[in-house]
Amino acid sequence: MAIRIEHGTTAVAGFRFAGGSAGLKKNGRDDLAIAVADEAVPAGAVFTTNLVRAAPVDVAAEHVARGRLRAILANSGCANACTGDLGLAAARNTIAALGRALGIPAEQVLPASTGVIGTVLDAAKVAAAIPALVASLSESPDPFAEAILTTDRGVKVANARGAIGGRPFVVQGIAKGAGMIHPSMAPLVPHATMLAFLFTDANAGAASLAASMKTVADATFNQASVDGDTSTNDTLVVLASGRAATPIPRGGAVDRELEEAMTLVCEELARMMVADGEGAEHLVELHVSGLPSNEEAVRIARTVATSPLVKTAFFGKDPNWGRLLAAAGRSGVPFDPAHARILIGGIPVVERGLGVGAAAEREAHEVMTLPSYRIDLVLGDGAGQARCLTSDLGIGYVRCNADYRS
Amino acid sequence: MAIRIEHGTTAVAGFRFAGGSAGLKKNGRDDLAIAVADEAVPAGAVFTTNLVRAAPVDVAAEHVARGRLRAILANSGCANACTGDLGLAAARNTIAALGRALGIPAEQVLPASTGVIGTVLDAAKVAAAIPALVASLSESPDPFAEAILTTDRGVKVANARGAIGGRPFVVQGIAKGAGMIHPSMAPLVPHATMLAFLFTDANAGAASLAASMKTVADATFNQASVDGDTSTNDTLVVLASGRAATPIPRGGAVDRELEEAMTLVCEELARMMVADGEGAEHLVELHVSGLPSNEEAVRIARTVATSPLVKTAFFGKDPNWGRLLAAAGRSGVPFDPAHARILIGGIPVVERGLGVGAAAEREAHEVMTLPSYRIDLVLGDGAGQARCLTSDLGIGYVRCNADYRS
Repeated sequence: MAIRIEHGTTAVAGFRFAGGSAGLKKNGRDDLAIAVADEAVPAGAVFTTNLVRAAPVDVAAEHVARGRLRAILANSGCANACTGDLGLAAARNTIAALGRALGIPAEQVLPASTGVIGTVLDAAKVAAAIPALVASLSESPDPFAEAILTTDRGVKVANARGAIGGRPFVVQGIAKGAGMIHPSMAPLVPHATMLAFLFTDANAGAASLAASMKTVADATFNQASVDGDTSTNDTLVVLASGRAATPIPRGGAVDRELEEAMTLVCEELARMMVADGEGAEHLVELHVSGLPSNEEAVRIARTVATSPLVKTAFFGKDPNWGRLLAAAGRSGVPFDPAHARILIGGIPVVERGLGVGAAAEREAHEVMTLPSYRIDLVLGDGAGQARCLTSDLGIGYVRCNADYRS
Repeated sequence: MAIRIEHGTTAVAGFRFAGGSAGLKKNGRDDLAIAVADEAVPAGAVFTTNLVRAAPVDVAAEHVARGRLRAILANSGCANACTGDLGLAAARNTIAALGRALGIPAEQVLPASTGVIGTVLDAAKVAAAIPALVASLSESPDPFAEAILTTDRGVKVANARGAIGGRPFVVQGIAKGAGMIHPSMAPLVPHATMLAFLFTDANAGAASLAASMKTVADATFNQASVDGDTSTNDTLVVLASGRAATPIPRGGAVDRELEEAMTLVCEELARMMVADGEGAEHLVELHVSGLPSNEEAVRIARTVATSPLVKTAFFGKDPNWGRLLAAAGRSGVPFDPAHARILIGGIPVVERGLGVGAAAEREAHEVMTLPSYRIDLVLGDGAGQARCLTSDLGIGYVRCNADYRS
């Protein structure tokens, strides 16, 4: 059965959600979200690889390593990063408060924070807001999806439905993230301003979910970049209630169908994040191919995708292929520019390292007016390839980030 | 005798200059510059390390390797990069034309181009403009300094006067460059949108000048970054007329006083370039120290100096030290964030990894309103350190680069 992607939130058997305000955001918008499983369920996660990681990431990595989680406590408005022992105590105090309210051990709660770096999370405000949120728990993930947002233009939700052994299941993904987006997550190597939470009623073991999250992140979020700035708080976590009673493959691995569903959901969320990159007007899917190895292709793709000159050309809808080629050329990866081929939306603008001409560039310019398009850099005959989802760098990005704290 | 830095152009014994329009720029501004030595003189150069290098860089590297140069032919309005055999032929045709006009071999002419990538230099236009320029050669470098500009806000000239063995000499530096600034130059590894030309009446041998240019570039231009985009055309070249009859040290090396003068001139030019970074309002001198090695410090400095989140915070005059620390944390270099110390204009805003407080940040904000200031990241007790000159990323940068070709 083909997996279907759906937008909009959906109930997932075994989970309840709530969202509200703890007064962390100056503008009074919702900033506290909780998700609760009916019982402690298998969970897996990957976190930022940034050396500077937030207190909640340290705590979250410790808790998810135990294999099972009962709840998620996420806040926006404060990243609780670079906050030392005070930050760590604040993170622990908030999950302890949720644990008390739910009557569960604090070790079964995964904390996640996003917002300004350098401010200690106000644990008292969070604790005071928890009882009302717990009282409002319901099957609808909408308040949760809303409360985790920061500079996002809107909620980011995607679901996939599939079936394993004839038993239907759903994977629901809820994410936030617009700026400081350049995820680079590895299992239990804590680091997050990209937060993504997956809830599924499928059956899976905790160890296999953790491994699966690494695979899924590498294929999706880790290929996305808004500004090259890997955050201190990136978190991707999945909780599996098992209520769909899907069979677990022999050996205990995550079922292929389930992994595909999680990948599709994360791909959709990653595209939403990049399209919602701060001030972004275009989602560009950059494909680099023809290199001797995938690693070399990745290095070029990341260099091109984070080049300010390339990204401002995207903003200007300018098929300035010279900038693409120049960025590739400074990546440190050897290739022969005289054999480079560049296509924008399938239209060749460079063949054998030379511009095809003005007519092709006019066509490419038309493509670049679209909200989403693809660019191919073919740099040789090798089998190595890579993909990067990136966005344009426009005036909106500057406005958003120059004014963020003021 | 202490070396003095001066601004404004000055005559340098043994050199004449000219500038004018060849019609390469759409706006009709001057775009062709020539500098001529009275005879073939020792020269040394370094070029871009970008794999994608412009045709004139290939030719320039070949010619300067012969040790002596008689003339420079520089144009703005067209980088003649990614132009294949046609571009190479165009570069050779233009220097052949200058060679004929001056009655010298083309191999004694160094070509340099800057401007849009992907367009073949119009050699016929350049050749047609050469006779008038040759006829107007004079001791004043002003027309030369003007004609090499592209998006620069003004000419970039700095001079240093010193003395060797009691004989006074001068080093004059003339540069252009505002965008695509992230020089990474190595000797005879051709690549340039940063062009810098040094003219001195001091005495020096060609081989030692080449070595000296590498040292000087590493200490100055290679520490400067506007947007992280190393260009296809970066060129730094020095011509030494020897007319000051300064003594050459035993062994033939460049005299220490001369190298210091060249370094001071290039430092001044590098600061002008970054301060004139497209749309930039602030020149930030970033110092990273306390790492085990200089290489590790360089890696962190470059990551922080090119972070869009950091650079937009500079634009917003926001002492957002969390972004500085987060950028350092994703550089791939291990350090202990809990021991990090950050100073903005000498004001500590982070001690032991934690924010010092709002009062310090208000003071730091005042510093960040200045056109130029220093930031220190002290990340441990090691001796490894690095420096990077960078700028803010503002709306002006986006405007400049989104509209560049349209």
